[in-house]
Amino acid sequence: MVDQIRLVEDGSVTLPRGFQAGATYAGLRTYSEDKRDLGILYSEAPAAAAATFSTNRILSPSVTTSQKHIAEGGGRARAVVANSGCANTCVGETGLKDAAEMSELAGGKLGLTPTEVLVCSTGIIGVELPMGLIRAGVPKIALTPEGGHDFARAILTTDAVTKEAAVSFPVGETTVYLAGCAKGSGMIHPNMATMLAFLTTDASIDTGFLQTALREAVDASFNMISVDGDSSTNDTVIILANGVAGAPQIHPGTPEAVLFQDALAEVCIRLAKAIVRDGEGATKLFEVSVHGARTVDDARLAARSISSSLLVKTAVHGNDPNWGRLMMSLGKSGAEVEEPKVSLFINDVCIMENGLPIPFFRDAIVATMRETDVRFRIHLDLADATATAWGCDLSEAYVVINSAYST
Amino acid sequence: MVDQIRLVEDGSVTLPRGFQAGATYAGLRTYSEDKRDLGILYSEAPAAAAATFSTNRILSPSVTTSQKHIAEGGGRARAVVANSGCANTCVGETGLKDAAEMSELAGGKLGLTPTEVLVCSTGIIGVELPMGLIRAGVPKIALTPEGGHDFARAILTTDAVTKEAAVSFPVGETTVYLAGCAKGSGMIHPNMATMLAFLTTDASIDTGFLQTALREAVDASFNMISVDGDSSTNDTVIILANGVAGAPQIHPGTPEAVLFQDALAEVCIRLAKAIVRDGEGATKLFEVSVHGARTVDDARLAARSISSSLLVKTAVHGNDPNWGRLMMSLGKSGAEVEEPKVSLFINDVCIMENGLPIPFFRDAIVATMRETDVRFRIHLDLADATATAWGCDLSEAYVVINSAYST
Repeated sequence: MVDQIRLVEDGSVTLPRGFQAGATYAGLRTYSEDKRDLGILYSEAPAAAAATFSTNRILSPSVTTSQKHIAEGGGRARAVVANSGCANTCVGETGLKDAAEMSELAGGKLGLTPTEVLVCSTGIIGVELPMGLIRAGVPKIALTPEGGHDFARAILTTDAVTKEAAVSFPVGETTVYLAGCAKGSGMIHPNMATMLAFLTTDASIDTGFLQTALREAVDASFNMISVDGDSSTNDTVIILANGVAGAPQIHPGTPEAVLFQDALAEVCIRLAKAIVRDGEGATKLFEVSVHGARTVDDARLAARSISSSLLVKTAVHGNDPNWGRLMMSLGKSGAEVEEPKVSLFINDVCIMENGLPIPFFRDAIVATMRETDVRFRIHLDLADATATAWGCDLSEAYVVINSAYST
Repeated sequence: MVDQIRLVEDGSVTLPRGFQAGATYAGLRTYSEDKRDLGILYSEAPAAAAATFSTNRILSPSVTTSQKHIAEGGGRARAVVANSGCANTCVGETGLKDAAEMSELAGGKLGLTPTEVLVCSTGIIGVELPMGLIRAGVPKIALTPEGGHDFARAILTTDAVTKEAAVSFPVGETTVYLAGCAKGSGMIHPNMATMLAFLTTDASIDTGFLQTALREAVDASFNMISVDGDSSTNDTVIILANGVAGAPQIHPGTPEAVLFQDALAEVCIRLAKAIVRDGEGATKLFEVSVHGARTVDDARLAARSISSSLLVKTAVHGNDPNWGRLMMSLGKSGAEVEEPKVSLFINDVCIMENGLPIPFFRDAIVATMRETDVRFRIHLDLADATATAWGCDLSEAYVVINSAYST
């Protein structure tokens, strides 16, 4: 992390100035005392908005509604209303009507037009949103400048923990803040994984650059993690930049832009790793860094192929320094690879050099692999491109969690 | 199956006339009384040869040696020597030397040039072939016209059962035979899956058409199955056609060519399904048929995306009619899909019609899913292309098998 970027412990999406949030239990999920399932994130001032969405051909109407609102608003938005428990997916025309009503309900409460409100849903597929509960729930949400942690809880489903990260960095004389929260742990009972992330900053950034920067950060973070290789109909990452800090606007190509890009990557990578660590059934996080690839795309292909291989995931689960599986998943990735140039490291111990295995003391490697974090490093020695991906192990518990509904 | 194609029960690769085979225990794998780990398949007459190989960028020198021999032989070959227990992969230059020596040893025994002998290896990666054992083993192999079943055993690794299939069909006045054996069950202790298949026929077919027909059959069979999504460095499918039946040569574009193509598909699909059924930890086989796709490529993409989804595999394991996961994996496949046109069937019960879920009696579907074979049928209603893929369930046992080496 660059020196000027400071981690803010316990920061939430309402750490940046001019943001409020809140959440309630509306009844969309099984009750427990501290459960939240409907939340609102709100910027007191107009904000630039950027977002990335699932590439799945089957999309939730909540996703298409948010896409439409960002486009119609010219890249500006003021609020997000999010629910867990129901994905609002595969429900026909009703889904669009319900997503529109959710934005109207939240907009009415906040004095905003529906277009200024983005909508996110996560949960069961094929079931209509219980709009009666949502109509009753929205008025109960108390928005406060301390509500960020509560909002982070409202988007959880099978997640065991909330996922939040925040940093500060200077723009001119001013310290600005950037914060985020995310959800996603592999699967949403009983249907599928959804990854949602919400980012806020009080820096001033125009929409075009905000979208470019978000895409770059997402490609290096959320797009480099894998719990089970499946991608949801509802995946959404949204950032709101409201400029309330009063710092000068950040323009592309300036040192401040680089700092902002680094800060955004830092927050996104922290959230992405937190998602993997909380993956269903996961007991370990492993990092795959690929160096010396011909292109960044090749480096990403190779790192993602290894981090999503079931054989690598089960090897990590068993603390097994099974480098043959790394070579197999590297080779099948599609990235350019020349076997006589490949070197492999497990937890910094060289296992293969220039395409040939090196005798290693197996018990010592197994012992280091017992830690909760495992590192694989691959040098391709072709050019200078690098990439890092993160995965979790595949455990018996993953199978139990995902097959236990009906047996 | 076309009427004129007859299944031959208990047929092996030596069922077609003019083929001999044999195997021995050379000591490459843990001993048990009926274990074989080194085998030879031999055609008494010159034969047209065609093959498909792994697309992994890391390839076993056994694979590259076979590729070279087929090219140098102008698409003709007489024998295959195959070992299990050692993949002959990631061992540097030694691998090429050892594969060459294996073809020399087998060629010397059979009175053939090394180029006439193809080489296949499956087993542990990163370990050199124990050539002393192979030198001692080759002379012990007794080749007989009844040796096909023994050869089928020599290529097994973690497979629980041998996989063989055979058919006959008429060419003119003559009945010709086509037979095959295969191995592959997900993983080879302790490194990775390899799929090998060997096909023989006493029909007369020129090399060019044989290669075209094999590619088409492999695309519809072995390339449509998934145990764990990983592809090996050693995958190989070889067919030898020796014309010993004395029937007229089969030329492309004739009714006999269609019959041969159908017979080849039949044998390949039977072997492919046998591999999936014997997948590591697998308790069930499921079939995914996609209808009404825009193109065959789209239909295959969609069927394979569903059959290889972990969430679908765990749902099948749990007898869970979780159609949201089918929609998710359909949508992420990249195939053209229009949600309002999609219909889904589980074991022939309609679960979704024209993009909308149909209320179904869940317990009844769960009960039908308890069978060892489960069928998913998806209608896209866009055009006429279809494809079928096969997968096995993902069980706790898969994780145990593949993570149990070092814990």
